[in-house]
Amino acid sequence: MVVEILAVGTELLLGNIANTNAQYLSRRCAALGFSVYHHTVVGDNEKRMTEAIRQAFGRSDIVILTGGLGPTEDDMTKEVCAKVMGFPMEEDVHTRKRISGYFRAARKKNVTDNNWKQALVPVGAKVLDNDNGTAPGLILEKNKKTVILLPGPPNELIPIFSEKAEPYLRALQPDTIYSKMVKVCGIGESQAETMILDLIDSQTNPTIATYAKTGEVHLRVTARAADEKEGKRLVKPVVRELKKRFGTQIYSTKEEEELEDAVVKLLKKYGLTVATAESMTGGLVAGRLVNVAGASECLKEGFVTYSNKAKRHALGVKKETLKTFGAVSEETARQMAEGGALAAGADSCVAVTGFAGPKDSKEEPKGLTYISCYLGGRVSVRKYHFTGNRRKIREQAVVQALNLLRLRMLEQYKHEQ
Amino acid sequence: MVVEILAVGTELLLGNIANTNAQYLSRRCAALGFSVYHHTVVGDNEKRMTEAIRQAFGRSDIVILTGGLGPTEDDMTKEVCAKVMGFPMEEDVHTRKRISGYFRAARKKNVTDNNWKQALVPVGAKVLDNDNGTAPGLILEKNKKTVILLPGPPNELIPIFSEKAEPYLRALQPDTIYSKMVKVCGIGESQAETMILDLIDSQTNPTIATYAKTGEVHLRVTARAADEKEGKRLVKPVVRELKKRFGTQIYSTKEEEELEDAVVKLLKKYGLTVATAESMTGGLVAGRLVNVAGASECLKEGFVTYSNKAKRHALGVKKETLKTFGAVSEETARQMAEGGALAAGADSCVAVTGFAGPKDSKEEPKGLTYISCYLGGRVSVRKYHFTGNRRKIREQAVVQALNLLRLRMLEQYKHEQ
Repeated sequence: MVVEILAVGTELLLGNIANTNAQYLSRRCAALGFSVYHHTVVGDNEKRMTEAIRQAFGRSDIVILTGGLGPTEDDMTKEVCAKVMGFPMEEDVHTRKRISGYFRAARKKNVTDNNWKQALVPVGAKVLDNDNGTAPGLILEKNKKTVILLPGPPNELIPIFSEKAEPYLRALQPDTIYSKMVKVCGIGESQAETMILDLIDSQTNPTIATYAKTGEVHLRVTARAADEKEGKRLVKPVVRELKKRFGTQIYSTKEEEELEDAVVKLLKKYGLTVATAESMTGGLVAGRLVNVAGASECLKEGFVTYSNKAKRHALGVKKETLKTFGAVSEETARQMAEGGALAAGADSCVAVTGFAGPKDSKEEPKGLTYISCYLGGRVSVRKYHFTGNRRKIREQAVVQALNLLRLRMLEQYKHEQ
Repeated sequence: MVVEILAVGTELLLGNIANTNAQYLSRRCAALGFSVYHHTVVGDNEKRMTEAIRQAFGRSDIVILTGGLGPTEDDMTKEVCAKVMGFPMEEDVHTRKRISGYFRAARKKNVTDNNWKQALVPVGAKVLDNDNGTAPGLILEKNKKTVILLPGPPNELIPIFSEKAEPYLRALQPDTIYSKMVKVCGIGESQAETMILDLIDSQTNPTIATYAKTGEVHLRVTARAADEKEGKRLVKPVVRELKKRFGTQIYSTKEEEELEDAVVKLLKKYGLTVATAESMTGGLVAGRLVNVAGASECLKEGFVTYSNKAKRHALGVKKETLKTFGAVSEETARQMAEGGALAAGADSCVAVTGFAGPKDSKEEPKGLTYISCYLGGRVSVRKYHFTGNRRKIREQAVVQALNLLRLRMLEQYKHEQ
């Protein structure tokens, strides 16, 4: 079956944002075994939207239509789509209630009239509740064509799609697509690909696709099979081979598990507490750990010590060290990790110091970063030269800091595995 | 004049990459005063590519066609485009020479035959040299329609476009587009729109467009004019009216200035230092401040105090307070801000404590958050009920924390404005 992704939004046509929704939806559709032959973007314009929907019906079975479901006047995707398909609109009592509840929970007082437009749905539509916003998702069916309407903001679109639209799509697909994710941290995409080129070249079913993320490479092994059991049987030996090749560079084989989840899991497994001591990353390593619900059991305390004074005051880095070696040095990184663990009374501490730019510093090029980890009475320090802009350099440092802590725990407790 | 952006690439349809080229090109075209009404993506497939090119000619004056100019068999964009437009192909001697030189400089030994395909161009095409790769950009003109072909990799596309295609496009465009951004924080999109509905309804030139970001609304005022001076003259009174309506809720009128930039600017203006004391946001407020190059002058120290113990230890929150009122309370928020400023020796401190979920806590619903700010011997505390998932709740809290600090500074020094 063929899926087409049609996004509505002037902000896309003006280049204010990239169409990351189309990327997300395409990847999920590919994983479900659907073919995607067209992405289209049009603005909030009735004529062009009508033409695009009609054209999509002419060449695709399912149209995923994103954006333009908001409360304002120029949001008209739902209305235009209902008109093209010949559905009248009616108020959905359930949705009106949900929106009221949403505003109540948000203690929102000035609920303007235009908000209730979002409770109108085409007659017969399947409503997909939105837990993160007011506009619901909708599924419309007519003459063997299906339209799935989703709100544009990714933090609303992704949960609705993954929790509500995906099960619907999965039921339309006769073959089962079974896939397993292998998440690797610490090596680049081209190196990862080189390490498995023979596997990729010989692949038919299952296939291996690689996706690069900052500091990480995700490998998706996908099999098409008659049922899930058969899919699992096909995927298993490939995943086993990947584990053999990448070893501890793999931090997870679970779709929803992020690097910070894997780190917190290990901290809990070994009954360890952790502290963070951050200069260049300025709190982002701690912020990633707090992403994990229940991280409070492990995260003792975090220190953001961007200035030299704070490094001395909060972490006890020696004045002499800062003077002799500089704030961005192996020695400073070492004392930050030791000092952070001591100050917080934690079993471990991960520390980051570096130059994020925007310009090269007097002494060193931007991107130079030292990441250290204290655990079991010993500090490891690693030196990196990250490339890219300020933001990218910091993001890479956060990933490598979490990964160093993970690798140190695995090493420390390897006999207990 | 109407421009259409047509990207070719299976990797886009599989969701391996986002179509950031379309974003870049749209932004540049908008700045040049062209209207972009459609983005399209198709795969490396002759039939679908032919249809897409024909359709684009039917509705647009200029088609920017990206991707599929590589040396391999499935790269056929140039060939298909030449066929649709009725141009035969010939070898471009200049390009063949340039490609030879490129391989020599790259010390590339195994130059396979398929590489010379890239020296073939449609007869009459204007060649745009590629300094970062082998495939040249091309401009084709016929029957008042123009096609600009660009290679897909952004590090090749961007230099060719900005250095060679943009001057060509600029010469085609008589009007100038002038726009100004007004960034508002602290109110929702629908409320912001309601506040300026009369302006939006009566708009023709300039126009006002609203964009929602987490905790922020951006308003873009755009005028079409004969020259920049005239554009500025048209935009000025509208921006003045917006400033009157939104007052201090506007944190910037600069395109590239983020909320954290505005905060650091005020800190520097008033010669203030700041500390952060974060529970639920776990370092993300400090992380946002460190986004700003040179934030080290202002950011004294950050504390990530996710556990009650850390709140007592690092910030001096009283045991009694935590016991009586709980960690998520006005009283705790107040002591966190005061204690953070004191511990860091900073002039100000912003603190966050709340329940981010994923589930409601025993006592309170998820989303309940107290944000406090210490400045000039006084602490302000605000209570929020954020909605959405864990990540969204935390993101909103970060924005409101930065905004509270901003508003407190404006209030404290309002007589010095």
